[in-house]
Amino acid sequence: MKILVSNDDGIFAEGIRSLANSLAAVGHEVVVVCPDKERSATGHGLTLHQPIRAEIVKSIFDDSIIAWACSGTPADCVKLALFGLLETQPDLVLAGINHGPNLGTDILYSGTVSAAMEGAVQNIPGIAFSLGSYTSREFEFAARFAQSLVQKIESQPLENLMLLNVNIPAVEEQEIAGVKITRQGIRRYIDVFEKRVDPRGKTYYWLAGEVQEDVEETDDQLLAANLPTDVQAIREKYITITPLQYNLTCGRQLSYLENWQIDNFSE
Amino acid sequence: MKILVSNDDGIFAEGIRSLANSLAAVGHEVVVVCPDKERSATGHGLTLHQPIRAEIVKSIFDDSIIAWACSGTPADCVKLALFGLLETQPDLVLAGINHGPNLGTDILYSGTVSAAMEGAVQNIPGIAFSLGSYTSREFEFAARFAQSLVQKIESQPLENLMLLNVNIPAVEEQEIAGVKITRQGIRRYIDVFEKRVDPRGKTYYWLAGEVQEDVEETDDQLLAANLPTDVQAIREKYITITPLQYNLTCGRQLSYLENWQIDNFSE
Repeated sequence: MKILVSNDDGIFAEGIRSLANSLAAVGHEVVVVCPDKERSATGHGLTLHQPIRAEIVKSIFDDSIIAWACSGTPADCVKLALFGLLETQPDLVLAGINHGPNLGTDILYSGTVSAAMEGAVQNIPGIAFSLGSYTSREFEFAARFAQSLVQKIESQPLENLMLLNVNIPAVEEQEIAGVKITRQGIRRYIDVFEKRVDPRGKTYYWLAGEVQEDVEETDDQLLAANLPTDVQAIREKYITITPLQYNLTCGRQLSYLENWQIDNFSE
Repeated sequence: MKILVSNDDGIFAEGIRSLANSLAAVGHEVVVVCPDKERSATGHGLTLHQPIRAEIVKSIFDDSIIAWACSGTPADCVKLALFGLLETQPDLVLAGINHGPNLGTDILYSGTVSAAMEGAVQNIPGIAFSLGSYTSREFEFAARFAQSLVQKIESQPLENLMLLNVNIPAVEEQEIAGVKITRQGIRRYIDVFEKRVDPRGKTYYWLAGEVQEDVEETDDQLLAANLPTDVQAIREKYITITPLQYNLTCGRQLSYLENWQIDNFSE
């Protein structure tokens, strides 16, 4: 398969090297287009107000891989790859392996997920891979799992307009409990900002915060599916696979709002 | 009601002044926390790697309004307001009035929508307002519509974990066809990047692109609702109201993936 690989940790991150090389090693045609520096928590940002640069970089990845370092966000990278750099469209857009998890509502802020989602928006299925730890650098197992998941998709294709959000727990391989198909959980934080005073006596804030994880989803359809959330399953040391799509319409509220009869708003 | 107002066009934009002042004028308690400069297309980005500043600014808004200019993204602004600046939680988080539409899949990139969504993630209902033109500066009608929508919500509250994405067509008031409850459409672009060469002979790219709008949604549940998309309805000069939520789980794919039996991945 022809596979576009991006990330949000930047081109020097071990996670992307590990992912791209392991896919090239089993014969896939891999092209890397990723940020030239860390762009995590950029959400699905795009660069509108300045030009984007992209340059081919050598010797970071295996020789069979063409790799571009791009000045933009993860979403910029995938867009530029699809519309500017690649001569033919890839079969898959992969992102990661991210250094740190992308779970629950945190995926709204995730550059990794947004890179894979940009593929989905352009009608190319994608997978975002994240390793559940900021410190562990053991990407080898995660990369092998990515290999086998891509192989699975080769024989049982994903629907085009969607992507998978995959999180791998940061534990030893033999401790992994298995793989669970999950739904997106909710992650809230407490003590979100640290307020500090600079040497000149002026206040500033650092985003910090402790995760407070056990918040329950209210969507009936999702609850009916009777699946654990990604947040729950990874706590039990499962690899989580959450199918995502990019339509945010809140289906269950459509009829409530129609009964509003807002059309006579001017009265 | 106590209303937090933010945007992505920055504190000097006419849209936010018009929205905040018109709500204060009918007696709401309005607090503005918004970026100190334009931050459009920042998606749901957060500032993790540097501190955030926020300062009270005077004389931009009506005297009854407390307004903060913040160095962060729209999502940072709302997070900081809720967890650092405001003493009590607002009843609503409003964003806008954006200079330009936020329709279809473009909302993934929208700082305006992400500001309102940050409220929803924190369990406070929100509304994102956008005026469908980058040049029109006639925010007066849009601000009046915002007044009446907020009044509606006062009597018929929104569910907490959701938000409304409201787009107002940039036409004369008497040309507006009415209000439609809509679902999120899909917006794709053609000729996405302009490739240019700088004075030193190096290539750079500008994100550009022409909208190619008529792409159809494939979600059965949404199609069954038999509602127009936001993209369709605004073309017919309707004000569009799309209820959104932040769970991206692709419900229709859950059972397909379960049948994958991916659990035996190591075989």
